[in-house]
Amino acid sequence: MNEQIEIYLDHVAAAPVRPEVAEAMTPLLTEGFGNPQSVHSRGQRAAEVLAEARERVAALVGVGAQDVIFTATGTEANNMALKGIAAGRASKSKRIVISAVEHHSIMQPARALEKEGYELIVLPVDSFGRVDPSALKDALAGGAAVVSIIHASTEIGTIQPIAELAAICAGAKVPLHTDAWGTAGMIPVDFAALGVSAMTIAGQNFGGPPGAAALILGKGFPLRAIMQGGVQERNLRPGQENLPAIAGMGLAAELSSKDMAERADAMRPIRDAFIERLPKRIPDVIVTGHPTERLPGHASFCVKYIEGEGMLLFLDMQGIRAASGSACTSRALKGSHVLEALGLDAATAQGSIQFTLGPSNGPEDVDTVIETMEPIIQRLREMSPIYKKKSN
Amino acid sequence: MNEQIEIYLDHVAAAPVRPEVAEAMTPLLTEGFGNPQSVHSRGQRAAEVLAEARERVAALVGVGAQDVIFTATGTEANNMALKGIAAGRASKSKRIVISAVEHHSIMQPARALEKEGYELIVLPVDSFGRVDPSALKDALAGGAAVVSIIHASTEIGTIQPIAELAAICAGAKVPLHTDAWGTAGMIPVDFAALGVSAMTIAGQNFGGPPGAAALILGKGFPLRAIMQGGVQERNLRPGQENLPAIAGMGLAAELSSKDMAERADAMRPIRDAFIERLPKRIPDVIVTGHPTERLPGHASFCVKYIEGEGMLLFLDMQGIRAASGSACTSRALKGSHVLEALGLDAATAQGSIQFTLGPSNGPEDVDTVIETMEPIIQRLREMSPIYKKKSN
Repeated sequence: MNEQIEIYLDHVAAAPVRPEVAEAMTPLLTEGFGNPQSVHSRGQRAAEVLAEARERVAALVGVGAQDVIFTATGTEANNMALKGIAAGRASKSKRIVISAVEHHSIMQPARALEKEGYELIVLPVDSFGRVDPSALKDALAGGAAVVSIIHASTEIGTIQPIAELAAICAGAKVPLHTDAWGTAGMIPVDFAALGVSAMTIAGQNFGGPPGAAALILGKGFPLRAIMQGGVQERNLRPGQENLPAIAGMGLAAELSSKDMAERADAMRPIRDAFIERLPKRIPDVIVTGHPTERLPGHASFCVKYIEGEGMLLFLDMQGIRAASGSACTSRALKGSHVLEALGLDAATAQGSIQFTLGPSNGPEDVDTVIETMEPIIQRLREMSPIYKKKSN
Repeated sequence: MNEQIEIYLDHVAAAPVRPEVAEAMTPLLTEGFGNPQSVHSRGQRAAEVLAEARERVAALVGVGAQDVIFTATGTEANNMALKGIAAGRASKSKRIVISAVEHHSIMQPARALEKEGYELIVLPVDSFGRVDPSALKDALAGGAAVVSIIHASTEIGTIQPIAELAAICAGAKVPLHTDAWGTAGMIPVDFAALGVSAMTIAGQNFGGPPGAAALILGKGFPLRAIMQGGVQERNLRPGQENLPAIAGMGLAAELSSKDMAERADAMRPIRDAFIERLPKRIPDVIVTGHPTERLPGHASFCVKYIEGEGMLLFLDMQGIRAASGSACTSRALKGSHVLEALGLDAATAQGSIQFTLGPSNGPEDVDTVIETMEPIIQRLREMSPIYKKKSN
C-alpha cells in the first residue's frame, strides 16, 4: 500500500464492505459453512442464513422474499432479465426496447439478441441522458417482449423517470426491467412504487461484498433461465449459493436502509461542490448527466482537449483515484456509448472523468481534488495538439 | 450451533475454507478492495491479485494463466463450456455427446440444447458408472460439436478414464470438456496429460471459498459466451471479478498442490474402511460406484428397503452429517439419474447415502458412523412396508 493519503473517488468500480459485513461473512467461510440444499442440520442452518438474507434484501426494495433471485453479479442479473424475459415472451413479440444509456451488461445482450433475430429499439436520450417517455410510447406501438431502462447511469449519474416509464409499459402490457445497480441502497427504491416488473440490484453501493447480486422478479410473465443445473433460486438460477456473500449483501441491505438518508445527505453537498466549482475553476470542463436528478454521490465531467487516461494516472500519482468511462471497460478505454448518446463528440468524450463518493469522502476532498487537477490539466493540455490549435 | 460433536461427512455439499484462505480474503473485502479494471494504482493492485490467483489456479492443472476463465460456480463453467462450445461449433455439427452420469449442470443444459434442435447422445455406463470408450467412438461417427464427460462423479465417486476418452475425441477432432469439479485439487489433474479441450474446476474440494470457479479453456475451437457485458476474462465472462473469492481459490490451489498426496493418503483408508465394513455389518447395503477407481474421500452406498432422507435425519440427530443424491437437488429428493444409469432400480436408489471426507475426518469416524447407522437402519426397515414384505 501507498504511504500517501488516498482520496478514493471510484466507489462505482469497487468499494470496501461495511466492517459488520466482513465480520458476518468470515464465520460462514469457516466454522459456519454449509449448503442450504443439504437435508441435515448444518444445511438447515445454512438455509436459515439464506432465508434471512433474502428477507433483508427483499425489504430494501419493498418486495416479498420469494421475489428475490440471487445471482453472482449485476451483469448476470441483467443478462438473465433481458434474455430470460425476451425468450419467455418471444411468442408474443420479438421486439426489445432499451435506452441508449444502458450499462454494457444490457447493451451487449441486447445486441446479441438482435443477432438472433430480435428487433432492437434503442431509445434516444436528451442531453442530460434522460429517456423521453413519448419515445418509449412510440416504441411500444405493436407491443414488445421486454423493455429495460437503467434506473441511474453509473457513468453520468442521471436518474431516469422510471415510474413514468413503467406506467407506459404497464399500459402496453410489456414488462419493464430496470437496472437499479446504482440506486438500490443509495436512494429509496420501492419496486411496487416504481411499477417495474423486474429489477437488478447489487450490494456494492451500500457496503455489500462482491459475489452477490439479485434479480427482483415480479409476477405475470415467464422467464427462461439462462443457465440450467440445480434447483436453487426457484429453479431459475442454478449453482451453489454463495452463502457468505449473500449473507453479507443481506446485512448490508438492512444496515443501508437505516443510514441511507444520512449517507446521501453527506454526499450530496460534496457532489454539488464538485459540479459547481470544477467547471468554474478550470475552463472547458462540462458536467455530464443531469445537474440535479442524479445519484447523490456522483459527479461526472468531460475535460476538453485531453484524454481521460492520462488525467487518471497523474491524479493517481497524487493519491486521487477516479474513473473514466464504465468500470467494466475502463482498461479497454473504448469510446463511451453513454457519452455519445448525450450528443458529445468523440474528442470531448475522451476526456471524461467521474468521481463517485463513499463514506470515506469529506467536503475537504473537493478542494484537494480541484487544486490537484488544475496543474495536471494545464500540463496535459499543453501537450495536446488539439488544444494548441485551439489556443492559436 | 449444536453442543454435540459433529462428524461432518458431506464435504461435496459444502466445506470450510482453509484458515489461510479466510485470512487472505478478509482484507480484500475491506482495506484491500479494488476493481482489476480500474486504471489507478488501487485497480492495478487488484489486477495483480487477480493475475497471481490466475497463475496459481493455472499451475494446479498445468496450464498457462491465459487459459483460466474465472466464473462464479462450477455450474456456470459447465453451462458455459457445453453451450458455448456447442454454439461456437454449431456450423460443424449439432450433435452433443455426454455421459449418463453427468452432474445436473451438464445434463440439464444438454437437455435444453436438445430442445433447441441439437442431437443429444447420452452414453451409457457400466455398473460402476464408467463410460465405455467404444460407445464414445461410435457416438462420434459423423462428428460432434462437443463432448462432455465428468472426471469423477461426486455422487458415486467413480473416476472416468478421461485420457482414453480424450484420445478418441482428439481422433475425431471433437473438443472434450470434462467437469473436474470433484478431482482438481483432490487428485493430480493435468490438463495436457488428460488431453482434454476444456475443464471445469472449483475450489471447494481443496479449501477454496464459494463464489469462485474456473473454466480452463484450450485452443483451436471457438466458444460463444453465455453472457455479455464487460471486457473481463478475455471478453468471455463479463461482470466484476469476485476478487476475494478468486484470490482465495488461488491460494487454496497453491496450498492444495503441496498437501494433496498427504490429504488423499489420509482419506483413502477411511474411505476403504467404510466401503469394506458397512456392507459386511449391515445386510442389503451395496456400494455404488467403482470399488477402487474412485475419489479418495468418497464412499457411497444404497441401503435397501429404506428412504435416504429418513436415514439422513436420524443420523443428523446423532451429529452425523451425510448426503443422499446430488447436493444440488437433495432438498428436492428427486430420483437420481446417476444411480439409474448404474442399473439400480428406483426403490434401491431411494436409499442412497454418501460420505464425503475432509481434513476433519479420522479413522475413528468409521466405527462411530457404522455403530450409529445399524440401529437406525433396523428401525427404518421395521417401519418399511417393502422390507416387511421381503422378510415375510
